[in-house]
Amino acid sequence: LRLGQPSLIAADWGTTSFRAYLLDAEGAILDRLEAARGIQSVPAGAFENALADCVAPWRGPAGRPPIFLSGMIGSRQGWREAPYVSCPAGMGEIAAAVAEIETATLGTIGLAPGVLSADALGGPDVMRGEETQILGALVALKRQDGLFVLPGTHSKWARVEGGRIVAFATYMTGDIFGALRKHTILARLIEERQGDDGEGQGFKEGVRAASRLSKPGELLHAAFMTRTLGLFDKLKPDQLAEYLSGLLIGAEITAAAQPGLDRPIVIGSPALTRRYQHAGDILGLAFDPAPDDCVALGQRALFRQWRSARSAD
Amino acid sequence: LRLGQPSLIAADWGTTSFRAYLLDAEGAILDRLEAARGIQSVPAGAFENALADCVAPWRGPAGRPPIFLSGMIGSRQGWREAPYVSCPAGMGEIAAAVAEIETATLGTIGLAPGVLSADALGGPDVMRGEETQILGALVALKRQDGLFVLPGTHSKWARVEGGRIVAFATYMTGDIFGALRKHTILARLIEERQGDDGEGQGFKEGVRAASRLSKPGELLHAAFMTRTLGLFDKLKPDQLAEYLSGLLIGAEITAAAQPGLDRPIVIGSPALTRRYQHAGDILGLAFDPAPDDCVALGQRALFRQWRSARSAD
Repeated sequence: LRLGQPSLIAADWGTTSFRAYLLDAEGAILDRLEAARGIQSVPAGAFENALADCVAPWRGPAGRPPIFLSGMIGSRQGWREAPYVSCPAGMGEIAAAVAEIETATLGTIGLAPGVLSADALGGPDVMRGEETQILGALVALKRQDGLFVLPGTHSKWARVEGGRIVAFATYMTGDIFGALRKHTILARLIEERQGDDGEGQGFKEGVRAASRLSKPGELLHAAFMTRTLGLFDKLKPDQLAEYLSGLLIGAEITAAAQPGLDRPIVIGSPALTRRYQHAGDILGLAFDPAPDDCVALGQRALFRQWRSARSAD
Repeated sequence: LRLGQPSLIAADWGTTSFRAYLLDAEGAILDRLEAARGIQSVPAGAFENALADCVAPWRGPAGRPPIFLSGMIGSRQGWREAPYVSCPAGMGEIAAAVAEIETATLGTIGLAPGVLSADALGGPDVMRGEETQILGALVALKRQDGLFVLPGTHSKWARVEGGRIVAFATYMTGDIFGALRKHTILARLIEERQGDDGEGQGFKEGVRAASRLSKPGELLHAAFMTRTLGLFDKLKPDQLAEYLSGLLIGAEITAAAQPGLDRPIVIGSPALTRRYQHAGDILGLAFDPAPDDCVALGQRALFRQWRSARSAD
């Protein structure tokens, strides 16, 4: 294999999207594609055809690089279940649990497992796809330790020690934001707005409100303040959604990280990363962004370790 | 006026329902009615006709008792705005702020104001209708002090000292429960169930989980446990909604009341009252139910004080 020649197709195949990279032997990204072909859009039994369609431009007469997948494609709702690995889980444990799918047209495909954590309350928590992003961030940043946050619909906060994910927790922040904004009494007052990146006054007020809460149930009260602050003209109608966003993100950060002790690494879109950084400015926490596309580094590392273990069998 | 003869029509006219009492001179309930004629179903300008329709059976040749209203009918979205009274607010302050509506066909109608509180975080909080229920419960229980909870879509917790509401806070518990249950990832796993009154195992587990939380943002994580406890068969599918209910109600109670210090009085439906009592059993808090129909006692007391002040003018 030569540099600049396709060596691996690595894809994060999630519930709603398919994001793939074409990598060379050193892990350089030769090409990328993204498609709205999430697993929920693919009928059972049709995953091989869907995948072949998506990566067809990269598999032709010139070569047929092997394929490695991570994300919800390895869940019960996906192509095949790759069972969860329990924490602590690092590159070794996760690579050892990679599932294989023999296909008629695409060769042997590797499928990353998810990771399982017992949370502080004793309940199980799960991730699937985020573990590969974290492994990639560790590679990219040459780190073995840190607190990682993957913000979004279901934010994941993971603590890594000695190269292994030792514990993590999921926060339904984005999902709950959407539900409160659209399906509660708050919906009536909250007006649609565009283009706010979290620097606005509403967001700041929400983060500050979160920092003043002390008991968990107070969040059920503070959310109602979105309405009363609007009714009494303490916030403008176009600030209310931002207030609610700041309140929930601020509460998430305050629960998951400790000012003075933690310097979390954000693996997320530039807009969400900026939002967490703005909240961190108010809460006294610095967030460092992870490099773009670190998921591909994690997929490549898992692929290589899985392949070399197979060759050794 | 003689006992047993109609003396007052008192109605709690809310957003979605109209509940009225026909009272005699001593406050005994002679008749009652409930209609799905909430203010949001009445076009602007049509409140007098709607009210006349509802109470027509009670106003005939035999008599035309005066009418007193409380609830959202006195809000900006209602018939006329009866401005909020600020805490501390007792019978005297609230009666002094009763608004009057002169009508062509129904006489002079009294309209209870709402109450305004600055919450512990400095934000405004409001109630409208609940203050009259609390005043009625004070009359019924012959009390001047206590912690009152009116559970529901937007639960109100009010502290009364010396007969006056000194502070209160709204918790969006029921509203958030509905939004999470139906409009987040939890909806997929939660199956509809009927007839659970909060004695089930799911509810208990949720209350216990709430009691173990320490930081506000952990509620965003604990809600996700509804899903993972279901995925890992730690809760049955028909227990998941109850778990979420217990989690949110438990968090609300833990934020609003202190075991050992408080013995809250619940003003609510029998089913909701039992639910709070079951949660209280786990959290070490006893809840006393308020008598049924105490709202009518509050309306009557406000009416009488308002009327006597008018006569004295």
